Amino acid sequence: MKRSELIDQIKSKESYLCIGLDTDINKIPKHLLELDDPIFEFNKEIIDQTKDLCVSYKLNLAFYESQGIKGWESLQKTVEYIPDTIFKIADAKRGDIGNTANMYAKAFFEQMNFDAVTLSPYMGKDSITPFLSIEGKWAIILGLTSNAGSEDFQMQKVKNDSGEKYLFESVIERCKSWGSDENTMFVVGATKEEYFKSIRTIVPNHFLLVPGVGAQGGSLKEVSRNGLNKDTGLLINSSRGIIYKSDGPNFGEEAKKSAQILRDEMKEILT
Amino acid sequence: MKRSELIDQIKSKESYLCIGLDTDINKIPKHLLELDDPIFEFNKEIIDQTKDLCVSYKLNLAFYESQGIKGWESLQKTVEYIPDTIFKIADAKRGDIGNTANMYAKAFFEQMNFDAVTLSPYMGKDSITPFLSIEGKWAIILGLTSNAGSEDFQMQKVKNDSGEKYLFESVIERCKSWGSDENTMFVVGATKEEYFKSIRTIVPNHFLLVPGVGAQGGSLKEVSRNGLNKDTGLLINSSRGIIYKSDGPNFGEEAKKSAQILRDEMKEILT
Repeated sequence: MKRSELIDQIKSKESYLCIGLDTDINKIPKHLLELDDPIFEFNKEIIDQTKDLCVSYKLNLAFYESQGIKGWESLQKTVEYIPDTIFKIADAKRGDIGNTANMYAKAFFEQMNFDAVTLSPYMGKDSITPFLSIEGKWAIILGLTSNAGSEDFQMQKVKNDSGEKYLFESVIERCKSWGSDENTMFVVGATKEEYFKSIRTIVPNHFLLVPGVGAQGGSLKEVSRNGLNKDTGLLINSSRGIIYKSDGPNFGEEAKKSAQILRDEMKEILT
Repeated sequence: MKRSELIDQIKSKESYLCIGLDTDINKIPKHLLELDDPIFEFNKEIIDQTKDLCVSYKLNLAFYESQGIKGWESLQKTVEYIPDTIFKIADAKRGDIGNTANMYAKAFFEQMNFDAVTLSPYMGKDSITPFLSIEGKWAIILGLTSNAGSEDFQMQKVKNDSGEKYLFESVIERCKSWGSDENTMFVVGATKEEYFKSIRTIVPNHFLLVPGVGAQGGSLKEVSRNGLNKDTGLLINSSRGIIYKSDGPNFGEEAKKSAQILRDEMKEILT
């Protein structure tokens, strides 16, 4: 999906919500377990109920891989089921040398029809650029993550020609030069709201993928205030805060209610 | 596999060779393509021919994921086929927040019977520790990688209380405190031979997984001279330099010859 198409979707839905399909077989309603593919059935109902309220779904690969071949099948069926108008993110956090990165790009962009893959920047340029060569496909690079461990390395001060800065700032600054705002986004955790302003000085136009609203405690209002740009420029993700609202047969409707609340807040912020 | 068992294997085989099963459907002998699972058949023959010469196999997940569900099946069959006396590495370079890291640990250590998973340190402690809680299972953390992109961030100078150092040194120093030499290894590329001595001052006892000998140009002798410790402490990986020596029906025997050359060099170095 091209940047202009994503922006059009945001405008027409008045939403920059991304819903995380972190589908855990141990957390989904028990009545689904009798079905042939409970994880897909869960996702299908969540998608049916929420697809008009969000512009993106993010599938966390770990939850599917933990189920082996069966999980991989659920993953593929889910990606195929999501409408083409919705931006599909493989939350895979991959990162490997050039020839391997090519293989991952093939896995997510050809074997499956994802629009974007999340990537870890630790291995540098040749681990990122293979994901930037197909029009309409995106690399979403980890910048400043929402977890406690982000303090360990991302918040270390690094020195280079232009002075002293945090490692995550150096990452965003360097990675933005490898692609453009048409094929690169950055992950910035919602729990790090105090850094959104400085990040916007480095990448005023890029989209940011923002996890950590909801279960992890980030504030939609604060993040939006400091992170929105002229094209919106944010995809705010909520996973557990939406998809596990009920473990009864009405789980889809309850998810819809939670998504609606976030989307209505977004609509208000956008106007 | 416990550290003592790995060391025993190295002693008895007089080898610290790890063979990388980076099995690419486009590079394997054409006659295999008629079979039901060409990737598994290729791996099976390579394993049959080389299992007495190496102590470890490393499976690069990207090559399997790029084939979708069929690739995942080949991966599982291959892991099951490798003898229990051989150390099995999932070269996955994962790294995600705690609840997700738990899922990945489940995927590789329970769903499949790998001994170790490679991990990217960018997201910090809670992305690593879930892999350290099962006896005999290992986290292999990226330190200094063999690719050109290692210059981008791993070689940046970071500042902390104990002065100025490279990011990769800071990563190794900090990560070693989260586990022990019984459950943590570090990836150090063979092309970075000038840094092995300084790395050994930080982690004198840890095992290092060393890719980059062969196709990428690293030297077995140099790496061994600077990297060996009292328990050997090295797993040297070769992938393309061993498995693609022939594309005829004799590919297994040719792979064996290449593995034999490396193993004989190792035997000489060890004595």
